[in-house]
Amino acid sequence: MSKRMEPGRTNPEQVGTPTGLSRTLAASASEVNEGHKNTDGGESESRLRRPPVDRRVFLQGAVAGVAALALPRQGRAGADDLSPVWAEIEKRHDEAVARLQEWIQQPSIAAENRGVNEGCDLTMRLLREAGFEKVTKVPTDGQPGIFATLDAGAPRTLGLYFMYDVKQVDPSEWSSPPWAAALVDKPGLGKILVGRGAVNQKGPEATFLAALHALRGAGRKPPVNFVLVAEGEEEIGSPHFPQIVHRPEVESALKGTFGIFMPFAAQDLDGRVTMYLGAKGVVELELVSSGERWGRGPRRDLHSSYKACVDSPAWHLVEALTTLVSADGNEPAIEGYVDKVRPLSAAEKAMVAEAARRLDEGLAKKQMGVDHWVHDVSFEESLELLVSRPTVNIEGLVGGYTGPGGKTILPHRAVAKLDLRLVPDMTAAEALAALKAHLAKRGFGDIEANMSGGYDPTSTPADSAVIRAATSVYRRVQIDPIILPRLAGSWPGYVFTGPPLRLPAGHFGLGHGNGAHAPDEYYVIESKNSNVQGMDGAARSYVEYLYELAQTS
Amino acid sequence: MSKRMEPGRTNPEQVGTPTGLSRTLAASASEVNEGHKNTDGGESESRLRRPPVDRRVFLQGAVAGVAALALPRQGRAGADDLSPVWAEIEKRHDEAVARLQEWIQQPSIAAENRGVNEGCDLTMRLLREAGFEKVTKVPTDGQPGIFATLDAGAPRTLGLYFMYDVKQVDPSEWSSPPWAAALVDKPGLGKILVGRGAVNQKGPEATFLAALHALRGAGRKPPVNFVLVAEGEEEIGSPHFPQIVHRPEVESALKGTFGIFMPFAAQDLDGRVTMYLGAKGVVELELVSSGERWGRGPRRDLHSSYKACVDSPAWHLVEALTTLVSADGNEPAIEGYVDKVRPLSAAEKAMVAEAARRLDEGLAKKQMGVDHWVHDVSFEESLELLVSRPTVNIEGLVGGYTGPGGKTILPHRAVAKLDLRLVPDMTAAEALAALKAHLAKRGFGDIEANMSGGYDPTSTPADSAVIRAATSVYRRVQIDPIILPRLAGSWPGYVFTGPPLRLPAGHFGLGHGNGAHAPDEYYVIESKNSNVQGMDGAARSYVEYLYELAQTS
Repeated sequence: MSKRMEPGRTNPEQVGTPTGLSRTLAASASEVNEGHKNTDGGESESRLRRPPVDRRVFLQGAVAGVAALALPRQGRAGADDLSPVWAEIEKRHDEAVARLQEWIQQPSIAAENRGVNEGCDLTMRLLREAGFEKVTKVPTDGQPGIFATLDAGAPRTLGLYFMYDVKQVDPSEWSSPPWAAALVDKPGLGKILVGRGAVNQKGPEATFLAALHALRGAGRKPPVNFVLVAEGEEEIGSPHFPQIVHRPEVESALKGTFGIFMPFAAQDLDGRVTMYLGAKGVVELELVSSGERWGRGPRRDLHSSYKACVDSPAWHLVEALTTLVSADGNEPAIEGYVDKVRPLSAAEKAMVAEAARRLDEGLAKKQMGVDHWVHDVSFEESLELLVSRPTVNIEGLVGGYTGPGGKTILPHRAVAKLDLRLVPDMTAAEALAALKAHLAKRGFGDIEANMSGGYDPTSTPADSAVIRAATSVYRRVQIDPIILPRLAGSWPGYVFTGPPLRLPAGHFGLGHGNGAHAPDEYYVIESKNSNVQGMDGAARSYVEYLYELAQTS
Repeated sequence: MSKRMEPGRTNPEQVGTPTGLSRTLAASASEVNEGHKNTDGGESESRLRRPPVDRRVFLQGAVAGVAALALPRQGRAGADDLSPVWAEIEKRHDEAVARLQEWIQQPSIAAENRGVNEGCDLTMRLLREAGFEKVTKVPTDGQPGIFATLDAGAPRTLGLYFMYDVKQVDPSEWSSPPWAAALVDKPGLGKILVGRGAVNQKGPEATFLAALHALRGAGRKPPVNFVLVAEGEEEIGSPHFPQIVHRPEVESALKGTFGIFMPFAAQDLDGRVTMYLGAKGVVELELVSSGERWGRGPRRDLHSSYKACVDSPAWHLVEALTTLVSADGNEPAIEGYVDKVRPLSAAEKAMVAEAARRLDEGLAKKQMGVDHWVHDVSFEESLELLVSRPTVNIEGLVGGYTGPGGKTILPHRAVAKLDLRLVPDMTAAEALAALKAHLAKRGFGDIEANMSGGYDPTSTPADSAVIRAATSVYRRVQIDPIILPRLAGSWPGYVFTGPPLRLPAGHFGLGHGNGAHAPDEYYVIESKNSNVQGMDGAARSYVEYLYELAQTS
């Protein structure tokens, strides 16, 4: 059961992606609802307080019955007339939906090694059809990645991050089959596409490709060139993503970009958007206590009566665990673990204070199923902890007999599954080393600490182009995004933002979906909710974003 | 998952029976091997050092090819000539084997509510056929028990304890189907019967019935009258056994007995027998920590990133657990828990010292898969701990995500499965109360302590007739039993030895078997190992025991 970070090993659980994470303060409940039936796919998602005054301006498009966003043009200096592009988006709507359906109908699940190569090939074809000229498969020790470029003859080049894999499914839990990609009417929301990958991440990605098709259909070249990297292992913790990004030709091409962008459906049901200037790092690991390694206790399960004269590896694990945190389980107590924690800056604290003012604490607690923050701190303090504190969390305990009732054994082995969330300037390697040294110093050196996945924190400056352009476009449609210093979850942006690339990296996109990692995952195709955009409006937002990026220095 | 002691509730794991337990110092490895494939059914079982000189005297019977023990008659004053009985045992050998096979071929598994009524009815018929006159089914809130009497017109009456249920099976793990009751040649051992219940407990019980048939066949009446109680829930912790024993007519009949006896296959592979003057009590329970009960932490699983600002029921459980034991996990630290522990008497210490001299420490450790006793104590001290110390053992830990790899959740619930072994004068009720009070006093009152089964310790005086008669018969065949103050495991003898009955209770029987609770459970039918008796020899030992009891005051 113990796992180490090995080439080709897969971790069936995602370490944490920002996809869907912005649905709540830090992470979508859908991420942990996998396997639960009847997860509400929509209405329960509006966790954030609506702005006191709805200042959003939505203009209806020319085609009756289609909610189409026409972004006001006045915000962008030297604005081209994009109405031919908007017309192409509408004209090609059905084609764009069909493209997304085809993509979803091809399962590609790294955790099950299912359809990944087929999914990779299909994605490569979709990229070629959208105008990418050089599209190559990048082998890794695990599933292949994709490296693709589109030279639009533009002065500037944008990096793109795609994933083509999706999370596992239990079809019995779905009201519409996960690979059918059926269009379903959802009351109050409109026409949605239900399928695995609908929002995480094929929906937004396909919508971005639809934007490229529309540009070409309108006779335009994209306003920026593209360098795209894609992986097929995002849902298992991106174990081989560095092998893709740091290939010489890929890294060299990425060095020529001014930042990295991932298409995203950022809108909550009330239309609100939260932006994150980075994400925590993570170490996922198992602590394994065994009689064999310890040299005490039994090497195989014994009758429990022997506890009177034989040491217990399960108690040994429990005693080791208690040394890792404060007595209330809330403060990390691993020696040296927090030494490199960089405190929040005044600017970051101001972001948190602003977010605390704008978010609804009662609603957040209700949606999370929580009555108290740790230490009963205020909402603002809880948000500060969320964005700034490293954690030591127990994901799972499993040892000895775990079935119904009891079984009279003294187990020879017990395991705690932990995840550690890291903030700058901690690193995954240093956190793991600190944990191991801590255990060894306290007489628990025999307990294995087997890391199964993880990576460093990622940070992107607020004044980087990818962030500023996103903010500008959101504000142009009267969405004032909440901005937080970082996501409390994790995504592998460190590959871009860390050395040697040191590029800014961010997410952007209007549109709405939900159910990542859960049953009935969906993406809104035609919105009847005036707060959120459908697929065409999301495509428009990508076009706007690209033009904005082209002129953001 | 939480369980309380409720009428009709079943606990699918046995709390601990002495059947097979004498196979080691305290408990058979087979008890914890259930579910493991290829458990060695025999050769690995000889854990105890062979006596330096083999003084056992075995006389071959008249029938060629059948190892038949003719017990020397000189030991028993006023001995009848039992040779007609011995002849009947041999004559009825095939009939006795067929009876055992029929019994085993009827599964009766309380944990699965499978065939229990049929098993009860069959057992009642077998008792009638063996000469019991009044055989009645005793309803309980769970599975029915049996109350039966046999009036032989003898001056004294013996109590008998039978169980008719058996442990669950996974047929795929068996080399011979568990319900086939096939006769198999086992190299070095002889002809064995393989099947669920073969040794635990139908084999010894059927052999005892064979002894009654032989007595009748030889025109003898049993030298004692019988009052028998049987239950069909031994393997789930005997939750309703008190309802059987304390029925007025049953309790009244039992009051007329001088002690309780359970047929048993007491011989190790080297022929040695260990006797126990009682057994520890036990409390099996689950400690359940949940956000819902606690009022802190989440009420359902959350994304793990929230650990930064949300309390963790899993850490809460770990912190509670550490308060229950000393820092090395070895000494109970539950307040008040050990207050009523009665220290070993000088006589009991002498028994342990004698056992330590006669047992092979190295072999015991090897068989247990253990290199060190707690605190690196001596063998004698380890045996003292085993028989005299109460325990707090972790049987299992189960919380949050327990599958392969990790899952980034903050679990809302975590469970520790514990068993507490109790020594006189502790009681199960007081132990549970002490645990609950301890947790409440330390801020863990929200953690549920759900007892799923258990009972008080049991003790029988060394000078009681059931013990003295057993010792006499063993010694008569040159077996010098090791005697220990108590079994470190548990059996529900307290129902007999506690108030109001206060009867001595013990096990006796030559013969050998193994694999209780494990695959390929067996009982030796025809022994080719000169150390152990087959079914006929075991039947002879029961006849001898009854005559010995008849004259032991």
